[in-house]
Amino acid sequence: MFDSLKRHSQKAGEAPGTATYSGNAKSFAPSLLRIDYSPDALEETSEAFPFSSLGERRMDNRFLLLTGLHEGEQVLAVGEWFGMHPLAMEDVLNTGHRPSFEEYDDHIVLTFRQVQYDPDVVRLKETHAALFCSERDVVGFLEEPSGLWEGVITRLRKGKTRIRRLGSLYLTIALLDAMVDGYFSALSSISADVEALEAALEDNPAEERSLKRIYELKRTVVALRNSLLPAQQALGALHRSEVVEMSSDVEPYFADVKGHADQVVEAAQAVLELLSSMLDLQISLAGMRMNNVMRFLTIIATIFIPLTFIAGIYGMNFTHMPELHWRYGYAAVLGLMVLVGAGMVRYFRNNRWL
Amino acid sequence: MFDSLKRHSQKAGEAPGTATYSGNAKSFAPSLLRIDYSPDALEETSEAFPFSSLGERRMDNRFLLLTGLHEGEQVLAVGEWFGMHPLAMEDVLNTGHRPSFEEYDDHIVLTFRQVQYDPDVVRLKETHAALFCSERDVVGFLEEPSGLWEGVITRLRKGKTRIRRLGSLYLTIALLDAMVDGYFSALSSISADVEALEAALEDNPAEERSLKRIYELKRTVVALRNSLLPAQQALGALHRSEVVEMSSDVEPYFADVKGHADQVVEAAQAVLELLSSMLDLQISLAGMRMNNVMRFLTIIATIFIPLTFIAGIYGMNFTHMPELHWRYGYAAVLGLMVLVGAGMVRYFRNNRWL
Amino acid sequence: MFDSLKRHSQKAGEAPGTATYSGNAKSFAPSLLRIDYSPDALEETSEAFPFSSLGERRMDNRFLLLTGLHEGEQVLAVGEWFGMHPLAMEDVLNTGHRPSFEEYDDHIVLTFRQVQYDPDVVRLKETHAALFCSERDVVGFLEEPSGLWEGVITRLRKGKTRIRRLGSLYLTIALLDAMVDGYFSALSSISADVEALEAALEDNPAEERSLKRIYELKRTVVALRNSLLPAQQALGALHRSEVVEMSSDVEPYFADVKGHADQVVEAAQAVLELLSSMLDLQISLAGMRMNNVMRFLTIIATIFIPLTFIAGIYGMNFTHMPELHWRYGYAAVLGLMVLVGAGMVRYFRNNRWL
Amino acid sequence: MFDSLKRHSQKAGEAPGTATYSGNAKSFAPSLLRIDYSPDALEETSEAFPFSSLGERRMDNRFLLLTGLHEGEQVLAVGEWFGMHPLAMEDVLNTGHRPSFEEYDDHIVLTFRQVQYDPDVVRLKETHAALFCSERDVVGFLEEPSGLWEGVITRLRKGKTRIRRLGSLYLTIALLDAMVDGYFSALSSISADVEALEAALEDNPAEERSLKRIYELKRTVVALRNSLLPAQQALGALHRSEVVEMSSDVEPYFADVKGHADQVVEAAQAVLELLSSMLDLQISLAGMRMNNVMRFLTIIATIFIPLTFIAGIYGMNFTHMPELHWRYGYAAVLGLMVLVGAGMVRYFRNNRWL
Amino acid sequence: MFDSLKRHSQKAGEAPGTATYSGNAKSFAPSLLRIDYSPDALEETSEAFPFSSLGERRMDNRFLLLTGLHEGEQVLAVGEWFGMHPLAMEDVLNTGHRPSFEEYDDHIVLTFRQVQYDPDVVRLKETHAALFCSERDVVGFLEEPSGLWEGVITRLRKGKTRIRRLGSLYLTIALLDAMVDGYFSALSSISADVEALEAALEDNPAEERSLKRIYELKRTVVALRNSLLPAQQALGALHRSEVVEMSSDVEPYFADVKGHADQVVEAAQAVLELLSSMLDLQISLAGMRMNNVMRFLTIIATIFIPLTFIAGIYGMNFTHMPELHWRYGYAAVLGLMVLVGAGMVRYFRNNRWL
Repeated sequence: MFDSLKRHSQKAGEAPGTATYSGNAKSFAPSLLRIDYSPDALEETSEAFPFSSLGERRMDNRFLLLTGLHEGEQVLAVGEWFGMHPLAMEDVLNTGHRPSFEEYDDHIVLTFRQVQYDPDVVRLKETHAALFCSERDVVGFLEEPSGLWEGVITRLRKGKTRIRRLGSLYLTIALLDAMVDGYFSALSSISADVEALEAALEDNPAEERSLKRIYELKRTVVALRNSLLPAQQALGALHRSEVVEMSSDVEPYFADVKGHADQVVEAAQAVLELLSSMLDLQISLAGMRMNNVMRFLTIIATIFIPLTFIAGIYGMNFTHMPELHWRYGYAAVLGLMVLVGAGMVRYFRNNRWL
Repeated sequence: MFDSLKRHSQKAGEAPGTATYSGNAKSFAPSLLRIDYSPDALEETSEAFPFSSLGERRMDNRFLLLTGLHEGEQVLAVGEWFGMHPLAMEDVLNTGHRPSFEEYDDHIVLTFRQVQYDPDVVRLKETHAALFCSERDVVGFLEEPSGLWEGVITRLRKGKTRIRRLGSLYLTIALLDAMVDGYFSALSSISADVEALEAALEDNPAEERSLKRIYELKRTVVALRNSLLPAQQALGALHRSEVVEMSSDVEPYFADVKGHADQVVEAAQAVLELLSSMLDLQISLAGMRMNNVMRFLTIIATIFIPLTFIAGIYGMNFTHMPELHWRYGYAAVLGLMVLVGAGMVRYFRNNRWL
Repeated sequence: MFDSLKRHSQKAGEAPGTATYSGNAKSFAPSLLRIDYSPDALEETSEAFPFSSLGERRMDNRFLLLTGLHEGEQVLAVGEWFGMHPLAMEDVLNTGHRPSFEEYDDHIVLTFRQVQYDPDVVRLKETHAALFCSERDVVGFLEEPSGLWEGVITRLRKGKTRIRRLGSLYLTIALLDAMVDGYFSALSSISADVEALEAALEDNPAEERSLKRIYELKRTVVALRNSLLPAQQALGALHRSEVVEMSSDVEPYFADVKGHADQVVEAAQAVLELLSSMLDLQISLAGMRMNNVMRFLTIIATIFIPLTFIAGIYGMNFTHMPELHWRYGYAAVLGLMVLVGAGMVRYFRNNRWL
Repeated sequence: MFDSLKRHSQKAGEAPGTATYSGNAKSFAPSLLRIDYSPDALEETSEAFPFSSLGERRMDNRFLLLTGLHEGEQVLAVGEWFGMHPLAMEDVLNTGHRPSFEEYDDHIVLTFRQVQYDPDVVRLKETHAALFCSERDVVGFLEEPSGLWEGVITRLRKGKTRIRRLGSLYLTIALLDAMVDGYFSALSSISADVEALEAALEDNPAEERSLKRIYELKRTVVALRNSLLPAQQALGALHRSEVVEMSSDVEPYFADVKGHADQVVEAAQAVLELLSSMLDLQISLAGMRMNNVMRFLTIIATIFIPLTFIAGIYGMNFTHMPELHWRYGYAAVLGLMVLVGAGMVRYFRNNRWL
Repeated sequence: MFDSLKRHSQKAGEAPGTATYSGNAKSFAPSLLRIDYSPDALEETSEAFPFSSLGERRMDNRFLLLTGLHEGEQVLAVGEWFGMHPLAMEDVLNTGHRPSFEEYDDHIVLTFRQVQYDPDVVRLKETHAALFCSERDVVGFLEEPSGLWEGVITRLRKGKTRIRRLGSLYLTIALLDAMVDGYFSALSSISADVEALEAALEDNPAEERSLKRIYELKRTVVALRNSLLPAQQALGALHRSEVVEMSSDVEPYFADVKGHADQVVEAAQAVLELLSSMLDLQISLAGMRMNNVMRFLTIIATIFIPLTFIAGIYGMNFTHMPELHWRYGYAAVLGLMVLVGAGMVRYFRNNRWL
């Protein structure tokens, strides 16, 4: 979150539509995967930066995957080749951009974030991603190399599948589905951590470390939800779009993706509620246990303080203290002490304090 | 909740519409109940896995109940026989699927969860269920054997009732009503537990165990509500559907089911508010009682500490301590102690600390 | 709330539209009041259970008031006479039914709850009520005898008033107004209790009893609001209804009733906020007072503990303790004690701890 | 709030449209100010209760201001003269009425509350006010004498201003603007008190008195917001009204008033959030300071308790205690005490407890 | 916030549309920058107060920037020259005015606030700004000199850019974008402070100072969000406006600005949630650490109090205390003390209290 604010504010003062890369410098060379396909055939080429010219589309459809956005010029070249709007190119390059859906005359552009959960530091790693979709072309942009779209590409390579037949909008939906699946996996891992923590808390009373962990998990789930919410909005905007006409072949699959996104948001909300309850319970239990310990200790002190006072009295050095010289004075005092102590213990017991 | 996340994320990376069973392995054989019926006649057959061929519809309407979804192939065979959409079959088999309503060209599919409250572990057991409804056929899918639809089937068997006359949409509504009734029963049992707990708390101050129980009850009600909410949405979608035209015969019954679902959600919300208030009250009361105990103990200590100090003074061994040799020195000091003690008790009384 | 859940879940498994009484057994005999009226004339008959036949309407309009729903057969007979829909009759008899508005071909049915506040146990007593309204007939159903509609009936008996002229919809509105007025009175009594409690808390610090009372009041207001909310929705649905055409004569009166219901809900919300603030304040004040007491006590102990230590030193029995034999050793030690004590008091004062 | 509930519930059971005064008895005589005006001329008469007949309108427009509603008959006479609807007259006389907007065939009636902040008791004084507006007449009703509309009347008296030209709707808007300005002033005074309190809290730690003050301020702002919210709704209803056609001359001024009302509500919300944060902070700080004090005191006690124990050992009267007779036994024990004390101080320092 | 309330309430009682400056007196002279431009040419003049006559537009478009609003007459003169509505001029001069969008016959006026974050006092400085836009003219009003629109003016000066071509609406959008960028920068600085604070809290336990800082940061973010929210609404109103027809050239840029505003509001919300969590965690951790310290100290006291009691017994001066004369009495008592002490330590260890 902070990261995206920082990236964005670097751009303050620029004209809108000024497309410059806003992320961190990267150490890998951008790569470009190109797949031309029709229901019956598929041709795949792949090259590293700098890319040679794009050339014409060779079959019915084309899918490009550009990994690495830090060579802005190259990204712009790709964008211009497909006739992307300047603002769209800005959105693609602005790695702090909020997930969004924008429609232009003959193409749409979706930006979103790819998430990965790192259980060791309890953080969500977010990278920027974008999708360009026109009638016959789809271009995917990834800030960093990742296996996000592996599965989709594998399905594309298999012959005569739905993905080869149903055109670029279906491909876009499949790519978006993979994005939502990423959120699913992340939330699922987080939930596993939450469950493990809950089990661990059963055995061990609340400690500083547990509180911090609950806090970190909450923070991560909030980040996940906040990252998905605008993506959910973008999917809704795509659905209501009048530019994009979804065929009845494709629509159910899109509804499916939207349903998945809704489910992740709901589940994230539920995990959050659970974590909040857990935190409240742990704090209450910690307070209650602490109180029990303190009460026990205070009771012990309270029993011995009057006894010590009695001992103090007969430790005084007055010349005229008749009890001191009684034959059974000492025994009597000891008996008195036992009586007082037993009386107090009984009183505390009766009041259920002990 | 976690369970459904886990089931779902197992499927990540698959093509949408890939229908595979996502639940746990089961030890029972799936069974298929088939009822052909018209207002005047009814024919019932029942068989265990593997099922023989389905054959033609023999009367006006047909109801199939498939219990056990873990033989995916068999489920797909049933689905294909009725011309279910691939995505619909995926929804039926995906036991982690969110309650949903989907409409296709000539049929609708509803998925939802059947809930059962287990008071011993204070957990909600959720199993997956689905309903397929076309003009003349209704197919119910249950993940596990259950009495959920016993009542409806019994009504179906009775001759010349509304359920025999009003067609497959009315039957679907009756089956949905049974599902909502399940939520009613679960919430009602939970409420009974809440009331019992409330009564128990009257007698016994808040303890760790009670806090945990409130927390578990809250968690269960949250799960129940979260499980019903999307079902409520699905009912709303069915109501607004343009594919399904409800006759004015059927519509009031559907409005009735929706009203029941609303009532459960509202009641769940109210139980949640009650549990939150109860928790807050218990924590406050526990704190207050603890404070009272501590105050009492501290006051006792505070009274004796100055007295012990006085005894300590006259326990010093100075050669020249004139008081030690006075005739009534001892009595005077004892008197002083009584005065100091009584003064302090009085002061504490005046300040209402005691 | 729990009550209505229980009543409802008794009905689980029944066919929708199965009208059976779901409340507790009652010890009084149902009674039926019948008023036939036109602007100029009024005829009133009243009979106890079992009722004789209803007979024809004798004037322009007719109002029936049936008190006691536990003789289900009789209620059904009345309902059938007026051509009520089976589901409507179920709603009337289901005393756990959520406040609702249902429209059928030629009549509407409203169910709601009549509330009474019992200040002794700080509980809201809710009973079931329903209204049937067709073009010329109004039937009121009350679960228990009550003065709810006394005022309206009195107005009806007076000659040539608006209520005699404006037909059955206006009468229904007047009856609903009385229902909302019941909420007004209940909330007003609760508010008086809240004010009394607030005044009492001014004088007395927070005690367990006060916390419990605030909690009970909150609970009661929540119940009142939760009971009115669906009634408010039902009024809204009646307003938007296309079946019921309100004449411009009647509409302002209906808007008035809706405005009253809104005002009760808003006021309930405000009372709730006030109670929450009050609770928070009381808990904070209790904590603060407790802290002050504990600080005072601890300071006393802290002052005397070092002094007792000094006395302890000179109470040791070493052979060689020169100070013990000094002429003014005792006085010097007493002086030292005074100095140490005064220094500590001063230090605490400076730090504003005392 | 409680006040308006009480006033309202006095009316329970009456027929809607029964116009009776519901406020407290007043000691002043109602007065009636009448202003006939046209862009070029103005005639003003003023009389005390009882009022003589109203007579005809003498110029283009007429404004009446009736102060004091406790002579219900007189108010009704005025209302009837202008053809007010019975329900409208009820709203005017019902001083507990919720701010509302009602439209009738040829006139509209707005009721609202005039607020004044009394900083001494930290309470909001609310009085009832109403506005009747027909094509050429405006009648203002005030429960008590107040300067609320002084400014508007002064502007009216000045010649040839917009207010003389733009007719009765513009006048109504100006009067409503004065009402909203009253909320502005009240909130502004409250905010000044909040700021003063915040500055005072900088210097002084949280005390019981401050907590109570924050609570009272919160309560007052909540009352102000709750009082304005329905007025805001009423303004919205007036805006959407199809009866009232606003000319493009008048509309911007109305939008301005609505904007002001929005601003007050937002500012009230912001003040509330601020007060809540302030309260939380004060409670946390108080707890933290208390903890620091207690920790310091407990550490002192903890240091001296073991030392006192050592002194206690050598205060025992055993015959055979060799150390007592050592030459440097006393010095050694004193040294031991210093060592133990210093060691403990060091340990506490290292743990940052001191 | 308080500031704008104060400014506004100074104006209470004035007629709407009375345009008077409501801010503080300023020490600088207002200045006027004028830029006439067309795609190919640009002419720039600049003068200080008092301004000479405005003269005719010299090219296609004109942009005026008026810095300093405290010479109300001058501002009015400018406003009148462009035919601004009286209410619009009031909004421009009312420096406490809520961000708003108003449309008049041939021009629109937007008011908003320019924010700057001052990290030293953790406050948001807000100044008033307004934009007038007609078909060919744009006038910007700034309460104080600032670099807010530097970047836009620089882009304007550069030849043949989009900003020179796309007319006055595009210029307005660019100026609004700079305003939103200001919020971005402010929030970004605040976030940096939040991150720094979070890192600092890792090392140091919660202290009074940290709590206050979190509170101040929260307060600042709330102010920022509250200041942007109505601006966001104003942008929405501009978007839905029927007076302003956005060409498809300009619309994507406007959507971009709105998206940015949404992103700031979301990010502010996320920062707020983070700060709240942080505060809760710090308070919990502080309580937990405090509890640990207190428990440790109390345990030490609890161990020594019984030992001191034993020493007290043998410090009594009874004549007949046989143990005192035993050969190994002293050693036995010391041994007993060690045993008791060790037993208690062991008991505390077993209970995990130590």
